[in-house]
Amino acid sequence: MQLFIGNKNYSTWSLRAWYLMSKFNVIFTEKQLVLDTPEFYETLKNSFAVQKVPALVDGDLQVWDSLAICEYINDAYLSNTAWPIDTAQRATARSLSAEMHTGFMALRNEMPMNIRATRLIELSAAAKKDISRIDEIFSQQQRSYPNAWLFGEFSIADAMYAPVVLRLKTYQISLSALAEHYCQHVLSCPTLQQWITEALKETDIVACDEAGVDVT
Amino acid sequence: MQLFIGNKNYSTWSLRAWYLMSKFNVIFTEKQLVLDTPEFYETLKNSFAVQKVPALVDGDLQVWDSLAICEYINDAYLSNTAWPIDTAQRATARSLSAEMHTGFMALRNEMPMNIRATRLIELSAAAKKDISRIDEIFSQQQRSYPNAWLFGEFSIADAMYAPVVLRLKTYQISLSALAEHYCQHVLSCPTLQQWITEALKETDIVACDEAGVDVT
Ligand SMILES: N[C@@H](CCC(=O)N[C@@H](CS)C(=O)NCC(=O)O)C(=O)O
Ligand SMILES: N[C@@H](CCC(=O)N[C@@H](CS)C(=O)NCC(=O)O)C(=O)O
Repeated sequence: MQLFIGNKNYSTWSLRAWYLMSKFNVIFTEKQLVLDTPEFYETLKNSFAVQKVPALVDGDLQVWDSLAICEYINDAYLSNTAWPIDTAQRATARSLSAEMHTGFMALRNEMPMNIRATRLIELSAAAKKDISRIDEIFSQQQRSYPNAWLFGEFSIADAMYAPVVLRLKTYQISLSALAEHYCQHVLSCPTLQQWITEALKETDIVACDEAGVDVT
Repeated sequence: MQLFIGNKNYSTWSLRAWYLMSKFNVIFTEKQLVLDTPEFYETLKNSFAVQKVPALVDGDLQVWDSLAICEYINDAYLSNTAWPIDTAQRATARSLSAEMHTGFMALRNEMPMNIRATRLIELSAAAKKDISRIDEIFSQQQRSYPNAWLFGEFSIADAMYAPVVLRLKTYQISLSALAEHYCQHVLSCPTLQQWITEALKETDIVACDEAGVDVT
């Protein structure tokens, strides 16, 4: 199985699929492509209908899109253990994952993931609203599962929200104490730390993702 | 179970969840809210974290987002029959559904769903590219399943693409013969016809969805 991903410093959607698969010890080969280069599009064009990362090849099968890859891995390799066991909790976890999949546009535009950077940024009202919704989600789940993953055990929902935890760190956004606990829990995960370590070794620069004023 | 939806003439995401549930004869009460009114936000605020439709209440559980609702219904009520039986086909169906969930932005912006209208519209290059991708998806699946649903039997993928079939009709977009076959198959579905009939009875106008030059 081959997982095509982008730059670890910048590619939020890649991180989601990679994190889920790595955390559950699914065996795969990582194929890294540098975003915004001719090779990126050339390589993906040869195998996929859609030229975006993440994209997965498993034998004859191509799976594209972060959420579809997570659902596929859960379905084909993890006997449904990548979602909460309880049906209602599973529905909530899927609602939150879908909300991330299509929403938080202001936050996503104004605060690009940029793991190696520490930045200050001026946020729009819409981005502030996104952050307060994130805070609400994290703290609400922490109330049910203190110092743990969103639904107690690690699930696809945590993979979907991991990039936002890294963004909050880069742009030094302060959250409520409970939401901060969740972020600390995520940041202390060795699998995520492995991605971060590899991101820090990268040197390619994607100009459109370099927002904010450097404060390192 | 209560499904909150918007105007049938305009609300594409509502249609997706409603169509899946209706087609599979899942019993629910429909709660219609008129988009872009104070009552819309007031009503949703009382029950949901996110003020968007579709949104589902099932006992104590709230499920928001079209795709999450479809997955929940499949999971809790349909014993996984709302996706193709074959694991690989299921992964492809989920990839296509995720592609619709996050993509086709130009098409979605320039060709709002407006069931009762017949319009002509000037399309951007990006919207034309979206349409040719839609044509590719429909005709590719028709090659495998002639005059049938995307994966033979009706699945969540068909529910996800139904609004685009209605948009193509409103703006009189021509497709390849095979893609046109799929559209005709969808349009001949009695459950979708029921939604269309109810949409035609509506009189509310949402100005931002009234794109194009009227040619009725
Ligand atoms: N909905 C897709 C979005 C994937 C996406 O936009 N990936 C970015 C990198 S993080 C990409 O490949 N961009 C290249 C491009 O759009 O040309 C998913 O969830 O995987
Ligand atoms: N990702 C959501 C999108 C839902 C959505 O944007 N719904 C529109 C109506 S089709 C809405 O409620 N708009 C009201 C608003 O955004 O204020 C889904 O798939 O259900």
